[in-house]
Amino acid sequence: MTAPARFSINQMTVKQLSVPELVAACGELGIAQVGLWREPVQAYGVEAAAELVRDAGLAVTTLCRGGFLTATDPGERAAALADNRRAVDEAATLGTDTLVLVSGGLPAGSKDLRGARERVADALAELGPYAEEHGVRLAIEPLHPMFASDRCVVSTLAQALDLAERFPAHQVGVTVDTYHVWWDDTAPAQIARAGAQGRIHAFQLADWTTPLPEGVLNGRGQIGDGAIDMREWKGYVEAAGYTGPIEAELFNESLWARDGREVLAETAARFAEHAG
Amino acid sequence: MTAPARFSINQMTVKQLSVPELVAACGELGIAQVGLWREPVQAYGVEAAAELVRDAGLAVTTLCRGGFLTATDPGERAAALADNRRAVDEAATLGTDTLVLVSGGLPAGSKDLRGARERVADALAELGPYAEEHGVRLAIEPLHPMFASDRCVVSTLAQALDLAERFPAHQVGVTVDTYHVWWDDTAPAQIARAGAQGRIHAFQLADWTTPLPEGVLNGRGQIGDGAIDMREWKGYVEAAGYTGPIEAELFNESLWARDGREVLAETAARFAEHAG
Repeated sequence: MTAPARFSINQMTVKQLSVPELVAACGELGIAQVGLWREPVQAYGVEAAAELVRDAGLAVTTLCRGGFLTATDPGERAAALADNRRAVDEAATLGTDTLVLVSGGLPAGSKDLRGARERVADALAELGPYAEEHGVRLAIEPLHPMFASDRCVVSTLAQALDLAERFPAHQVGVTVDTYHVWWDDTAPAQIARAGAQGRIHAFQLADWTTPLPEGVLNGRGQIGDGAIDMREWKGYVEAAGYTGPIEAELFNESLWARDGREVLAETAARFAEHAG
Repeated sequence: MTAPARFSINQMTVKQLSVPELVAACGELGIAQVGLWREPVQAYGVEAAAELVRDAGLAVTTLCRGGFLTATDPGERAAALADNRRAVDEAATLGTDTLVLVSGGLPAGSKDLRGARERVADALAELGPYAEEHGVRLAIEPLHPMFASDRCVVSTLAQALDLAERFPAHQVGVTVDTYHVWWDDTAPAQIARAGAQGRIHAFQLADWTTPLPEGVLNGRGQIGDGAIDMREWKGYVEAAGYTGPIEAELFNESLWARDGREVLAETAARFAEHAG
């Protein structure tokens, strides 16, 4: 079996696999690209993981994720910036040019979404040049509005682009994830806007299934199981000039409870069926 | 105690109270306005409920809710339209001029949000004139995007107004509910657009608290407990010319588990503190 050429498996989809198991399974299934996550890569060792994927001939499409840049406390803010510089370093070590950023939610007790979004912009002004020096682009990911208070104050592609546009496209762009934007009738126009500026730095797929689980984080549906027309959204990014990798990124307790290699094979097959 | 004059209690907030208990508690607490729900009112008897609230001097600010107009099956569609005509009749009987509409989600297996939204428009074309004949205005309520697939394909005020604008303002307007729109940085401009057209037919408050419960329906926070600046949103609708009632509408298992009269008193007090 050889997976479609543009398919990339995000590590979180099969987090039950260790880094070596993931690399081996990709080899067996003909998967040529992976999106990696910082925590499991750090646990394995960043240099060691980089060597493993390089030796296996795997391309690293993104590193997920930096961000969480909304703190008001100066100490917390400095720590977040330092951590994001480390994330840039890790991305460079792993050989990917794209660091996905999730902006962070509201500080405890705050009701000021606008202020939080401005603090993200301030942080990007510091991180963008640092990333550029290391050959890395920042890709702001708007998360679904249901995460606006506790995880990501950037809820739409329009908001993400309003932030990104303050910086050069080779420093700051956006991540388009079907799960987060599928409900938004203005998203196709925003994808066109992003493409015209060369700011589509990552494209990810997950399907929308209900009922949502408690906390709503780990209910992303397998491709084809939900309400999203994957081919329609692939068409939007392609019409905007995007020809890069397409990551499947599923956070799903029921997928994590299964055999990781089986989930990987299923995800590649679903990609071929619904977005190939 | 006398509740603030613009305060209205939506019946669902204290659904543990029977209709007579609700009416009595409003009298004791100096609450002059209620928003009613079809199911408990039908169970009590529409005429009897109308008489009860009229005799108590209570104004009925809205009837919730009509809608669910997205079916493709002709039989289901006809049934939905008939049910919405009954909802208009009930609103007229209860003496409210506003019927809140929740559009409905995607039919099983469908991935066509755009088509579903068009079917809502088709239904409004049939229901708007019927409502007008009965002295009732339809108020399309955009629900939070997390309900887009299973409950309401209208996710933003912009989408709701795009639908409403096809009809006269005295037939079709919108409901602004803080819980559903608070994350949307374009909502203040859309409230201004709605106000300029005379289409703010209802204004409801609920706060955004996390973590969301499984299914995400019954986690609306008590006013003041969450991330939403109520006075800011009240300011937007007032700047848009809205001077009508303000309903507190909370779906919350933990509030429903408490003494209803106590919740009612608390909600009125929170309203006075955060939006009075």
